[in-house]
Amino acid sequence: MIKVGIVGGTGYTGVELLRLLAQHPQAQVEVITSRSEAGMRVDEMYPNLRGHYGSLAFSVPDVATLGACDVVFFATPHGVAHALAGELLAAGTKVIDLSADFRLQDADEWAKWYGQPHGAPDLLPEAIYGLPEVNREAIKQARLIAVPGCYPTAAQLALIPLLEAGLADTTQVIADCKSGVSGAGRGASVGSLFSEAGESMKAYGVKGHRHLPEIRQGLRRAAGKDVGLTFVPHLTPMIRGIHATLYATVVDRSVDLQALFEQRYANEPFVDVMPAGSHPETRSVRGANVCRIAVHRPQDGDLVVVLSVIDNLVKGASGQAVQNMNILFGLDECLGLSHAGMLP
Amino acid sequence: MIKVGIVGGTGYTGVELLRLLAQHPQAQVEVITSRSEAGMRVDEMYPNLRGHYGSLAFSVPDVATLGACDVVFFATPHGVAHALAGELLAAGTKVIDLSADFRLQDADEWAKWYGQPHGAPDLLPEAIYGLPEVNREAIKQARLIAVPGCYPTAAQLALIPLLEAGLADTTQVIADCKSGVSGAGRGASVGSLFSEAGESMKAYGVKGHRHLPEIRQGLRRAAGKDVGLTFVPHLTPMIRGIHATLYATVVDRSVDLQALFEQRYANEPFVDVMPAGSHPETRSVRGANVCRIAVHRPQDGDLVVVLSVIDNLVKGASGQAVQNMNILFGLDECLGLSHAGMLP
Amino acid sequence: MIKVGIVGGTGYTGVELLRLLAQHPQAQVEVITSRSEAGMRVDEMYPNLRGHYGSLAFSVPDVATLGACDVVFFATPHGVAHALAGELLAAGTKVIDLSADFRLQDADEWAKWYGQPHGAPDLLPEAIYGLPEVNREAIKQARLIAVPGCYPTAAQLALIPLLEAGLADTTQVIADCKSGVSGAGRGASVGSLFSEAGESMKAYGVKGHRHLPEIRQGLRRAAGKDVGLTFVPHLTPMIRGIHATLYATVVDRSVDLQALFEQRYANEPFVDVMPAGSHPETRSVRGANVCRIAVHRPQDGDLVVVLSVIDNLVKGASGQAVQNMNILFGLDECLGLSHAGMLP
Amino acid sequence: MIKVGIVGGTGYTGVELLRLLAQHPQAQVEVITSRSEAGMRVDEMYPNLRGHYGSLAFSVPDVATLGACDVVFFATPHGVAHALAGELLAAGTKVIDLSADFRLQDADEWAKWYGQPHGAPDLLPEAIYGLPEVNREAIKQARLIAVPGCYPTAAQLALIPLLEAGLADTTQVIADCKSGVSGAGRGASVGSLFSEAGESMKAYGVKGHRHLPEIRQGLRRAAGKDVGLTFVPHLTPMIRGIHATLYATVVDRSVDLQALFEQRYANEPFVDVMPAGSHPETRSVRGANVCRIAVHRPQDGDLVVVLSVIDNLVKGASGQAVQNMNILFGLDECLGLSHAGMLP
Repeated sequence: MIKVGIVGGTGYTGVELLRLLAQHPQAQVEVITSRSEAGMRVDEMYPNLRGHYGSLAFSVPDVATLGACDVVFFATPHGVAHALAGELLAAGTKVIDLSADFRLQDADEWAKWYGQPHGAPDLLPEAIYGLPEVNREAIKQARLIAVPGCYPTAAQLALIPLLEAGLADTTQVIADCKSGVSGAGRGASVGSLFSEAGESMKAYGVKGHRHLPEIRQGLRRAAGKDVGLTFVPHLTPMIRGIHATLYATVVDRSVDLQALFEQRYANEPFVDVMPAGSHPETRSVRGANVCRIAVHRPQDGDLVVVLSVIDNLVKGASGQAVQNMNILFGLDECLGLSHAGMLP
Repeated sequence: MIKVGIVGGTGYTGVELLRLLAQHPQAQVEVITSRSEAGMRVDEMYPNLRGHYGSLAFSVPDVATLGACDVVFFATPHGVAHALAGELLAAGTKVIDLSADFRLQDADEWAKWYGQPHGAPDLLPEAIYGLPEVNREAIKQARLIAVPGCYPTAAQLALIPLLEAGLADTTQVIADCKSGVSGAGRGASVGSLFSEAGESMKAYGVKGHRHLPEIRQGLRRAAGKDVGLTFVPHLTPMIRGIHATLYATVVDRSVDLQALFEQRYANEPFVDVMPAGSHPETRSVRGANVCRIAVHRPQDGDLVVVLSVIDNLVKGASGQAVQNMNILFGLDECLGLSHAGMLP
Repeated sequence: MIKVGIVGGTGYTGVELLRLLAQHPQAQVEVITSRSEAGMRVDEMYPNLRGHYGSLAFSVPDVATLGACDVVFFATPHGVAHALAGELLAAGTKVIDLSADFRLQDADEWAKWYGQPHGAPDLLPEAIYGLPEVNREAIKQARLIAVPGCYPTAAQLALIPLLEAGLADTTQVIADCKSGVSGAGRGASVGSLFSEAGESMKAYGVKGHRHLPEIRQGLRRAAGKDVGLTFVPHLTPMIRGIHATLYATVVDRSVDLQALFEQRYANEPFVDVMPAGSHPETRSVRGANVCRIAVHRPQDGDLVVVLSVIDNLVKGASGQAVQNMNILFGLDECLGLSHAGMLP
Repeated sequence: MIKVGIVGGTGYTGVELLRLLAQHPQAQVEVITSRSEAGMRVDEMYPNLRGHYGSLAFSVPDVATLGACDVVFFATPHGVAHALAGELLAAGTKVIDLSADFRLQDADEWAKWYGQPHGAPDLLPEAIYGLPEVNREAIKQARLIAVPGCYPTAAQLALIPLLEAGLADTTQVIADCKSGVSGAGRGASVGSLFSEAGESMKAYGVKGHRHLPEIRQGLRRAAGKDVGLTFVPHLTPMIRGIHATLYATVVDRSVDLQALFEQRYANEPFVDVMPAGSHPETRSVRGANVCRIAVHRPQDGDLVVVLSVIDNLVKGASGQAVQNMNILFGLDECLGLSHAGMLP
């Protein structure tokens, strides 16, 4: 039984970790921390967990206690994992960070986008980007894993088959992405109110969003060179779900894109290439650790349109984190993650 | 491994049965029928099930095939189980009916509310009302189970502790219930359109709703006498969930209602009496086979207010059906039903 | 042209006042205040107003400027109008207060429910409760108007025909009310987040809600004696709208309730008694200054069920405030308020 | 007073016409037809209209009655206006068609996309495409107006400033559009159910959507040559609103795009170019006849991103139809259309 610690468990990725780990047969949450809610039972804050965690309560973060765990998940705002990861690694604890702290390999770029110096640049060389479909072997050996962001997961999985095959014009790729409101977190902000975000649609961060450099880094890895990327996120009036619509120009129209995608993901348990002509719905992956993808080339032209959906809190965060844990500890990768999405 | 058949699997209770049974370790869906969609794969209609049911497809209902199953669930409009249940029982197959066909013990009352003669009055004497919290022992011996309706589940679980204890004035009890739109089913009707049911609230069926006699029957059983009931259902702009708000007058103010409810449900795995002062949210049971209840007596007056929430598709339908199956076949009652609700 | 001032215009009742007054032919907003947003243009905060208010911007509240207006609306949290109303009245300015400051006639009861001493008890004797359907003549002469709360408007309009006619048992009346999330205001609170309030239903404040004494006061006025009231508000996943479901026992079954209600509101421009058997939807009054009501007596029993819907921001707040202004200044009561609701 | 007839008034564009015309000082609805609902009062079907249309009821379409009107709006499925428009024009009645019947100038292309022969090709030469921002002068003289589709309105208004100025590479333009569910109409279809379309996002019609040729035709007009267009519509869980996100490559980076857009629409009452850096929300135009636009050039690259929002039922249908009527009859173009959007 893997002893699990969670730092910063009051947000949505925290409660989602708890929901998923409650049904995981090989993991046991030993400690969950929150400075603001220390002393409160987790099922008092999240009544959906009543009956699943006994009297487990949030505690003040403490390296000794966390260091006694086999693995610690960070479900925190950026900056927190920078401060704590090193000590935990030194204690022999694995770290799976759901925040952005170790996603960008370049500390300077991180500093530029997050508006503060990188707090642990020395750990960057061993931080593994936890996208199993790309890095599975490295994850197996890792001590420190950076779980990809939600938009980056949906966008990369949709584009890497094209880029790895050298089939896309790398000058300009467009990621028009639509996210549910839970992506903005559980913090009390006016923009995330029901009466503000409901019954409305808007783009945001067109000038530049923090997931842009992360996606760009992933695309570069896949293409073997820089990829020009335009990323436009949109706030959508639903709680969960990301729908990424990707546009790229193919350099060779003769390739069977459907076959290409199916082959690329043939052995991937959590990527589902849908039949030709499909339009995946975000609800088909609600609560499930799956990315569903469909590939189109409208009017048989040069432009490929890839549709990619995930649940931002599962394959886009906590589910992917558990998937990484499974790989890291040599378990069946699907353990605790094999349930179907909830529809309707 | 229990061999399962499902009749009429294209509706929401059908897909929810499939979702729940996909994670059930002791049940295997062998056949699922639909006249209208015969030949279509279940995961083509419900992409959330991709990867869970192989090539399982809807087939035309056929007694021979269904009769080879250990148990057959009816997820059909009323009238269908009337026609088929007898033959299946004769074949030695257990029947768990999610429709209203066998819920009312009085065939004449059924005929009055459903506008057609009862199609199998001879089966009524052995039909067991599948509310485990009331009928567990009878369910164990049953061949034919009538799974309670969604409103009746939420309302009865909230009221029976009071009625069994003789604590409520039975002259007048009020059930003000709020249901998500999935309760209206997957049929294409204007009133259930997103643009009709969204961003709006309305009562319906104030004159008389088919769940009224079912609730009344259950209350009578609990009280040992007739109970005057006013039932007002409301359509609420959410997909899943029922919130029942029950009003009853207590005949003895000195009783500790919190303790009464806690004792009544102390051994019930799927009824959660929340701490005094709680306000259960439907989302806390989303996707889960749980009924959460809170008891209030505002301003220390005579009126008890009981708040009761369920997921109409789970504890209000398919989850309760699986719970009945578990009891019927001597399995752990929680098998396949122990996951937490999905929040947010 | 009436010169209008608005204090505290950044909340939802503020922007709704601006929306309604933009189409009012006899009123002109001269000043709108907000300490926190002073200097910001109103259409920068509320882009729906672009093109309607030129460069009008929020300013710091200032008695001299406000006192130069003919009327000042308070769209503020409780306590603010207490502090300012006296000075404005002294300056000859009429005050229409949308907050709770002057709704309760008893200062001690106000202090009890709002947790602080009443700040202007000397003004209470002349404060008129601005429910035109009850107090029209007094409003015409008023200097200080307390606009009713949203729940109290829906509940009182539904019950007063019964109470005025002495037809309801006053021992126990129940108001089961469902409100959209905008009723909680535009403040950043976790409970009002899209991901918290969406796709869920819950009761709140069952122990006691501030609108309880206000409704009770109005019912007492109508009945000529105390009325036992149980009030249970529910948070509903929609932005606008209140659906009140009222339960009362009739003391005389022979009375034609439909006729009673129709006669009571025959001359009321903003109360619509729907045909017998109707179920009003909140969306039918979205954006409109209307209360729609339907009366039922299920199964011809003793219990009357009254269904009442309003838009909480219009007839439940800003629209009713404008209606009061029209009456106060001798204008056509419907001026600026005659548009239809927005459906779908 | 303009005498108005409406053919096919039971759908959403029909009820929206009624809502808007109820507040129009120079128009009077004389007749509204519906074969399926003949005899029903309009306010029985649409209670938001109670008090606004007296006893006006749907009637069976009849050319004599309609021909006595000054103008007839068609709010019908495609094909109906083909059959009736000629007779009405012959009777001297103006026709404003909200359907797709006269939008495409090429009858063969119409036949290809709509799967049936064009029913009135002889009328095409005089059909004016009713986008006032492009065709105002022609509309003034017209007898037969084809009101643009919802997506085409949002997309064209966003792109024509670039194309008219020759600033966009016409090889490839992308329109990633998100629509509320009311765009699918009031017909009872499974895909538009609350429980299907709610809490989910999906693309549809990627292979080819009927609005594609209409947008392409408009872009060709603006550019003076063919424009390569990829159009991907998405179904969004909101009732009203379209958010179009347009991607085009600029051929000259030195041009001030903000100024270009502001100048193009300087005199347009219903197009609002927002300040640089803005992200328009669909709710800012809810219920209002406005298109709000913002122009971005992320990372100062070649790609222009234009954000464009409308209410699909107003500027995308019925509001634009009334705007056309105002122009056609020499009225103030804003008559009946000057109200602000409803936010929240």
